[in-house]
Amino acid sequence: MTELDVATLQRRLVAFAAARNWEPYHTPKNLVAALSVEASELVEIFQWLTPEESARVMDDPKRAPRVRDEVADVLAYLLQLCDVLGVDVLAALDAKIDRNEGRFPVPE
Amino acid sequence: MTELDVATLQRRLVAFAAARNWEPYHTPKNLVAALSVEASELVEIFQWLTPEESARVMDDPKRAPRVRDEVADVLAYLLQLCDVLGVDVLAALDAKIDRNEGRFPVPE
Amino acid sequence: MTELDVATLQRRLVAFAAARNWEPYHTPKNLVAALSVEASELVEIFQWLTPEESARVMDDPKRAPRVRDEVADVLAYLLQLCDVLGVDVLAALDAKIDRNEGRFPVPE
Amino acid sequence: MTELDVATLQRRLVAFAAARNWEPYHTPKNLVAALSVEASELVEIFQWLTPEESARVMDDPKRAPRVRDEVADVLAYLLQLCDVLGVDVLAALDAKIDRNEGRFPVPE
Repeated sequence: MTELDVATLQRRLVAFAAARNWEPYHTPKNLVAALSVEASELVEIFQWLTPEESARVMDDPKRAPRVRDEVADVLAYLLQLCDVLGVDVLAALDAKIDRNEGRFPVPE
Repeated sequence: MTELDVATLQRRLVAFAAARNWEPYHTPKNLVAALSVEASELVEIFQWLTPEESARVMDDPKRAPRVRDEVADVLAYLLQLCDVLGVDVLAALDAKIDRNEGRFPVPE
Repeated sequence: MTELDVATLQRRLVAFAAARNWEPYHTPKNLVAALSVEASELVEIFQWLTPEESARVMDDPKRAPRVRDEVADVLAYLLQLCDVLGVDVLAALDAKIDRNEGRFPVPE
Repeated sequence: MTELDVATLQRRLVAFAAARNWEPYHTPKNLVAALSVEASELVEIFQWLTPEESARVMDDPKRAPRVRDEVADVLAYLLQLCDVLGVDVLAALDAKIDRNEGRFPVPE
C-alpha cells in the first residue's frame, strides 16, 4: 500500500491544475471562494438532518459517498490555496493547537 | 525537527476536545457548520481585495497571520469531522484526484 | 400589475411550507444553514469570473436565470427565518443603516 | 410610523455606499462574497446550539441583537447586489414560488 501524505497530494493537485492551464484562475481570492462553496456543499447534505441522523450519515449508502467526495473537495482547495500562498498548513495547525492549549485550559 | 503528519494532528485535536468535554457538541452537523464558518472567515479577509492584491496577501503583516490562523481552523474542523465520521480524508482526496483525471482529460 | 411586498411574499412562503408539513424542519438552526448554502450557490456562479466578467453576468443567457434563481432562494430562506424568529427584517435593516451612518461618517 | 419598504431601503443603501465612494468595491463578485460571509456570521450564532436552543434564541438577551444585526446585514448585501445586477428581487422570489408550486405539489 502506498503511504499517502499531504505533501504528495498537494504536488499532485498542483500538477493537475498546471496540466490544464487552470493557474490563472487560481488566485487566492478565487480559491477561498471555491473552498467556501465546497464547505457549503457539505453543509447541504446535513441541513435538514437531526443531530442523531447526522451521526449516522455514513450508514446511508446515498449520502456516504457524497460526504467523502465533499471532504475531498474541501481538502483539495485548501491545499491548492496553501500552495499559492506559500503556507505550510500542517505547521499552521500545529501552531494553532499550541496556542489553543493556552487559551482553553483543561478544567480540573 | 518533528515531522508533522495529518494522523498525529488529528489525534491531538481529538484529545484536545475530549479533555474539555466538547464531544457532545461535535456532531457531524455541527462540525460541518463550524467548518463552513471558518471557510467564510477566510473569504472575509479577501472579499474587498482585487485579484492582484489577493496574490500579495502574505506580504501584508496584518493579514498574513490571520490567513495562517484561518487555514489552520479549516483543517482543524475538517480533521475533527473526518474523525467522527470515520472517513480517511487523504484516501478520499486520492480517490477524487483519480476520478478527476478521467473527468478532465489533459488538452493536447 | 400586483404590487409585490415583503410581507405578502413572506406569508406565501410560510403557507407553502405549512401545506407541505415542512415546519418541523424549519428550526432557526436549519434555516440559517439553508440560507448560507443558497448564498454559496450564488458565490459558485461567480467564483472563477474576473471582476469585469462578474459585472456583465446578467448579459450571459446561461448565468442570468441562475443568478435570479439564487437571489430568490436567499430571500426565501431569510424571510422564513425571520418568520420563525419573529424578527421584522425591514425594521432590522432600517435600524442598522441608522447605526452605520454614525459608525462611518461621510468623508468631507 | 413610516412604512418601510424594500425599494426605499435599497435606495438608502445605494446612496450610503455612493457617499463613501465604496462603489468600486461593489462588483457583483465582491458583493456575493460579502453576502455569504454575513450568512455565515448568522450560522456562527447557531453552530453549537441544539435545535431546541435554536428555537429559543430570541429569548437570549445576548444573542437576540446579534441575530437582528446579521439578518439586516444579509438583506443589506442582497439588496446592494440586486441593485448592481439590475435584478428585481421581489419579482424573482414571486416567480420562484410560482415555479415551486409546480415542482412540489401539496400532498393530499
